[in-house]
Amino acid sequence: MINRLCIIGLGLMGGSLAAALKQRGAVKHVVATGRRDVSLKRGLEMGIIDSWTLDLAEAVQGADIIVICTPTQVAEQTLADLKPLLTDDMVLTDVASVKGNLKAAAERVFGEAPKNFVLAHPIAGSEKHSVEASNPDLYVDHRVILTPLPNTDASAVEKVAAMWSAAGADLVHMEVEDHDRVLAATSHLPHLMAFALVDALAQDGAAEEIFKFAAGGFRDFTRIASSDPKMWHDICLANSDAVLERLNQLTDNIDRLREAIETGDGETLMKSFANAKHSRDNYFLTQYKHDA
Amino acid sequence: MINRLCIIGLGLMGGSLAAALKQRGAVKHVVATGRRDVSLKRGLEMGIIDSWTLDLAEAVQGADIIVICTPTQVAEQTLADLKPLLTDDMVLTDVASVKGNLKAAAERVFGEAPKNFVLAHPIAGSEKHSVEASNPDLYVDHRVILTPLPNTDASAVEKVAAMWSAAGADLVHMEVEDHDRVLAATSHLPHLMAFALVDALAQDGAAEEIFKFAAGGFRDFTRIASSDPKMWHDICLANSDAVLERLNQLTDNIDRLREAIETGDGETLMKSFANAKHSRDNYFLTQYKHDA
Repeated sequence: MINRLCIIGLGLMGGSLAAALKQRGAVKHVVATGRRDVSLKRGLEMGIIDSWTLDLAEAVQGADIIVICTPTQVAEQTLADLKPLLTDDMVLTDVASVKGNLKAAAERVFGEAPKNFVLAHPIAGSEKHSVEASNPDLYVDHRVILTPLPNTDASAVEKVAAMWSAAGADLVHMEVEDHDRVLAATSHLPHLMAFALVDALAQDGAAEEIFKFAAGGFRDFTRIASSDPKMWHDICLANSDAVLERLNQLTDNIDRLREAIETGDGETLMKSFANAKHSRDNYFLTQYKHDA
Repeated sequence: MINRLCIIGLGLMGGSLAAALKQRGAVKHVVATGRRDVSLKRGLEMGIIDSWTLDLAEAVQGADIIVICTPTQVAEQTLADLKPLLTDDMVLTDVASVKGNLKAAAERVFGEAPKNFVLAHPIAGSEKHSVEASNPDLYVDHRVILTPLPNTDASAVEKVAAMWSAAGADLVHMEVEDHDRVLAATSHLPHLMAFALVDALAQDGAAEEIFKFAAGGFRDFTRIASSDPKMWHDICLANSDAVLERLNQLTDNIDRLREAIETGDGETLMKSFANAKHSRDNYFLTQYKHDA
């Protein structure tokens, strides 16, 4: 049982965590804080938090667990603001999509990352990102990746793991670098591609005509292009090395397929398309249980 | 009312058309033909056709409307086989995703495309493509694009339009070239990209690990990579000019975004991502009613 959970930055992720823990009786009091009061007031109205304050010191006082849910780009400032307020009995964690840059930010702020700071990434979300969209079942059967550092306290890791288990999630441990490479492939690159495609078509003079004749395949392929631009801007820059590595892997493949189309090399196309279908049908779909 | 409808190549598209027309009482007799009997027998068992034959001459005899549903790559052969069998009172149409190459094939076979040949493309489908997946409502509220040629008979166009209306579809007329450019953008290029991405990741040594951490965004983004490789191989080659034009438009944009990530140019990323989200949310989603 968590006595006092503090959420910094109340949006879809923090709101859904609070809602999940409250609904399952796993927390006594949830306090939220942030830069503006709009979403905090809304969270209180929705009954997913118990109190809120704009004062960070007040928010974290007496908290068992503090969850940083602020945008990637302000994470370092959040850590700096927290530095004078943290005590040894507080566990600090986060929900950010990129771990390497957060580790680096913690090292800049603290010298080395605090031993009770447990880096974590729940693999769940939606193209809707406000507290309004909070869902107590958002994390059920979804993976949460913990990327503890060599100096991270085992008991702090346990507390964060227990919190996510209570919210219905499955836990996995990974190295920071592995996490960032894997997520670049399955999440960051697809978002970049979806944005790039829709943006390219939108720049076409016939954009409206084009979109008019789009069907289900296009809708699903581009759903993630309706995601928050600022969040994905932050992620692409925060995980730039891994994203660029994956992007080059993809564009090498695109170049190969372009040449095959130009030269009428059907065999290369068939081999590539069949390999993609085989991989998706066999490796991905059989393992998939992480979304409705 | 169609007296006798002949379907050449019984899969998802032809099977769903037959099912739709029979369910709505818009056809008296549906005969199907093809190279092998497996799907023909299955269609008869399912009650979506009334008879079948492997003999093309027998199949088309007395038909009001003949619908070519064979793969893109064999369309020219199908037209050549049909040439001696067609009479003036038969209307010929098709369901292919690319129109320019079919027009060219018709010109090679017939000198000029027959005046009762109405090129058509129903914008509906699924990654499942066998007759088993036939659905009498597949075309309801979906667009069917007719691309009649200058010499196409108005009464033939009317008959084909009436058939698709009876199946619940909305009709649109376009020029062959416009059709192929628009569909390259909204359908052919996204399929190519989905195949290219999954294939690139599948070639990675850590492919299984990568797919294990994929979530809902990846699933939707790559759904179309589970489509029939042969069909999309055919389409990419049949519409190669328009696909390459769109592909270059996209890779120019990707190059711009890659440079922005490399140089930390957040403004370019934000502008592009925000434009994509705006376009998808405003132009596309508001018009969208073409899939469940």
